[in-house]
Amino acid sequence: MKKITIYDTTLRDGAQAEELNLTTEDKIRIAHKLDELGIHYIEAGWPGSNPTDKKFFDEIKKHTFEFARLTAFGSTHLAKKTPAQDANLNALLAAETSVITIFGKSWDLHATTALGIPLERNLELISNSIDYLCQRVDEVIFDAEHFFDGYKNNPEYALKALKAAYQAGASRLILCDTNGGTLTHEVAATISAVRKALPNASLGIHAHNDSEMAVANSIEAVRLGACQVQGTINGYGERCGNANLCSVIPNLELKMGLETIGQGNLERLTSTSHYISEIANLRPFMRQPFVGASAFAHKGGIHVSAILKDAKTYEHIIPETVGNEQRVLLSDQAGKSNILFKARELGYELGKNDPTVDLLLRELKQKESMGYEYSVADASFELVLLEALGTPLNYFRFQNFFVVDAKREEDAEPFTEATVIVDVKGQVEHTAATGMGPVNALDRALRKGLERFYPKLSEVKLLDFKVRVLSGAVRDTGGTASFVRVLIETGDKHERWTTMGVSHNIIEASWQAVVDSVNYKLFKDDLRDTL
Amino acid sequence: MKKITIYDTTLRDGAQAEELNLTTEDKIRIAHKLDELGIHYIEAGWPGSNPTDKKFFDEIKKHTFEFARLTAFGSTHLAKKTPAQDANLNALLAAETSVITIFGKSWDLHATTALGIPLERNLELISNSIDYLCQRVDEVIFDAEHFFDGYKNNPEYALKALKAAYQAGASRLILCDTNGGTLTHEVAATISAVRKALPNASLGIHAHNDSEMAVANSIEAVRLGACQVQGTINGYGERCGNANLCSVIPNLELKMGLETIGQGNLERLTSTSHYISEIANLRPFMRQPFVGASAFAHKGGIHVSAILKDAKTYEHIIPETVGNEQRVLLSDQAGKSNILFKARELGYELGKNDPTVDLLLRELKQKESMGYEYSVADASFELVLLEALGTPLNYFRFQNFFVVDAKREEDAEPFTEATVIVDVKGQVEHTAATGMGPVNALDRALRKGLERFYPKLSEVKLLDFKVRVLSGAVRDTGGTASFVRVLIETGDKHERWTTMGVSHNIIEASWQAVVDSVNYKLFKDDLRDTL
Repeated sequence: MKKITIYDTTLRDGAQAEELNLTTEDKIRIAHKLDELGIHYIEAGWPGSNPTDKKFFDEIKKHTFEFARLTAFGSTHLAKKTPAQDANLNALLAAETSVITIFGKSWDLHATTALGIPLERNLELISNSIDYLCQRVDEVIFDAEHFFDGYKNNPEYALKALKAAYQAGASRLILCDTNGGTLTHEVAATISAVRKALPNASLGIHAHNDSEMAVANSIEAVRLGACQVQGTINGYGERCGNANLCSVIPNLELKMGLETIGQGNLERLTSTSHYISEIANLRPFMRQPFVGASAFAHKGGIHVSAILKDAKTYEHIIPETVGNEQRVLLSDQAGKSNILFKARELGYELGKNDPTVDLLLRELKQKESMGYEYSVADASFELVLLEALGTPLNYFRFQNFFVVDAKREEDAEPFTEATVIVDVKGQVEHTAATGMGPVNALDRALRKGLERFYPKLSEVKLLDFKVRVLSGAVRDTGGTASFVRVLIETGDKHERWTTMGVSHNIIEASWQAVVDSVNYKLFKDDLRDTL
Repeated sequence: MKKITIYDTTLRDGAQAEELNLTTEDKIRIAHKLDELGIHYIEAGWPGSNPTDKKFFDEIKKHTFEFARLTAFGSTHLAKKTPAQDANLNALLAAETSVITIFGKSWDLHATTALGIPLERNLELISNSIDYLCQRVDEVIFDAEHFFDGYKNNPEYALKALKAAYQAGASRLILCDTNGGTLTHEVAATISAVRKALPNASLGIHAHNDSEMAVANSIEAVRLGACQVQGTINGYGERCGNANLCSVIPNLELKMGLETIGQGNLERLTSTSHYISEIANLRPFMRQPFVGASAFAHKGGIHVSAILKDAKTYEHIIPETVGNEQRVLLSDQAGKSNILFKARELGYELGKNDPTVDLLLRELKQKESMGYEYSVADASFELVLLEALGTPLNYFRFQNFFVVDAKREEDAEPFTEATVIVDVKGQVEHTAATGMGPVNALDRALRKGLERFYPKLSEVKLLDFKVRVLSGAVRDTGGTASFVRVLIETGDKHERWTTMGVSHNIIEASWQAVVDSVNYKLFKDDLRDTL
């Protein structure tokens, strides 16, 4: 089976994304995760460019990797220096990686305008830099920057740039669509031309997504003979991002029968994607192919009914091969099938003609029109289900809360205090707590009131807190009076669960989500005790 | 110039997206917007499938469109009915659109498994339905569902399905990659085969993005002879979405020299994309090609320095052709060029060696590491700039605020009241206000205190309020004690501006953003008065 190497530049090119901001610790964790995934090359940064990158390379020397080869990235030497004098090349060597990747100009416009040097001199920079480095490290890869635009405008010059790198000893020539403007058939034609001109060279592709073709271009390049694909996890990168490895890898493995990270590792793809988006502090894109939460999520009644007969009818691959899963959604487009499926998933067998199903469907559509979205808050849905089944929970009854935020100084955070009054099986508890914000204070006050009766609540930890302003209401009532939806993710030693609240008032919305979360925990504990 | 028609299914296929939930009013507004954009066909829904869609078609009869042709979508008639008896076909005719689009099974598996009928009968359903409708409306389009998978598995049968539709009078045969699993070169080969088998048929492409190739597949299909592309705005749709028309259209117009909506309308693309994401209540995807906020945003120092010489060096098209714009970002990767550019954009000429620039760069990097993101809050940045230039604002001085949320009943929202004490040029104002939530109450109380001195504050309207929990801190302190970033968008009759606040406490973060917003307004009013 033909093997394609995967070269990840999440830590370098990916980090140039507008919304990305990684610390050294973040990068180290990501590097190890990529190593576990079976990535062949990890381009970890540009040591000559800024102190953060340099610090990273100093740190990473203390770490070992099972499989991946770390690479340091940098530019050809400055025109007015020799390689030995060049600070950038020296920084690359000081990084002590076994592989160095050098990028050089292959578009004549860039040499003359961006660098302001003669075309011949640019070729020398490429040869000199690569020759110098080849004598000092195991492997030097050449990134032909702007190759496709360069080839369109001055094909002879672009090929000269490649040849200069090849003859100087570069192990691989990576053709970069740096501006991301190249169409798929143009990539195919260009790669064919390069293969004719340099039949023995090992080629790679580095695509950008400005025309929304980076993945297709990468696949097409491999089909035409490239044996390395460069990209990033989740397609992060400057402007529209790099080729998304989370799409490239499964396309190569599952549809083209090529070996990249291996099918065992492929099952880690979804969890790797999530892990990295979490470290990056970026909301995952639900519609992301292969690994996105919606990638195998079915909403329309007809689709649901068909996939329940044969998943192949509406799924192009088996979700588990990439570590994802099929989901059936509840929505106002839901039919009875969706409710039955969801209830069964939660452990409740309902008959198709059970009046509860109609009741639930009506309740669901009505709440969804107010902004509730049960497809993302399973635990809240389960509580609605219990109430519809005539078995509402009764662990405590709300009486009163009172939250105060008082700010007395210009540069201090407010002092926040909450008091809560709840009736727990006839006993009234009145508690108070401070907090780092109003929701934190309420949560702590409530738990204080309940822990005496339900000690297991102390195991509970709030893991995540998401707020979304439902701008449907913005147009009606103005910015700060919109509907707000709060999602809280909670966990204990058994599981994690998500609950939701919706209100004009962010405190009220958070309170609903906190109450649902506590009720869910108590309900599950009871279930566990009876088993 | 060859013309390619654009067929938009945002209101039908797009609406099957997990996160999408459109009301009838939403759909009407979107339909008019698409008409203004120059879209040729608007597939507005499936009248036979649910009451919401049917209601929409009843409503839309009262509206006229300048340019677009509305289409109603539905399935072939039920096997056990005749066309005249079929409820779905009758609902289609009752919608009274001039165009009807019928989808039929072209993959044998779907006929036998999903529908449970013999293969010959499926072909009859296609012929009968189309023949019946062709006699009653101007135009009938045939969507060959799952065509590419169907062709892979049983090419003769797939072609028979097309022929049945063609002979029955379908104006166009749309080849659908319904599961989204087809690779670009496979699309090319299949379309070529179809063109050989049916040389006089007018073909279209309807791609899904499950392999992240929908746009590339659409472009390739056009290159091989398709003359209609079906897709959605922003790529909305079930699972991974449909082909993104915001990428398809500029690729066809600007890179392939084909006419779609016309270059005048092309300039409306970005605003149309935003308008529709706002109606859909979905956060726009920043990295979206062509129209995304980051599509022409440059962060790295080297890129910024090059594009300031010639934008072509890092931009594949001129942003204004699609109604977008170039942006230079401030970040910890910013160099002096970014600061100078940003300051100049705001009207301040700073010298390269002005010590303010270094001061600002340091301030910026420090604040960004805490979670501030000035790239999205220009007005807050301008206030930081003013302070660095030694001209801080002095419209009012904070002394105290106090916010209370008191909930006394199970199903009621809390009563919220804020008091604010500010010193306005030596005069102390102590005001109180209620609100629909704590931030709304604070905002109202503050403005009450200031409006006596600055009457123009009454022109100000809060337009949007965004909250983001910076989950970097979640791992350290737990869910409800994370850092929160609040962005407020404000507007008056002159402009709109965005301000920001960051804190553990959501009230404090909101307060910072509100204060910046008020200060910015007062500052701009002063500037206008002096001009």
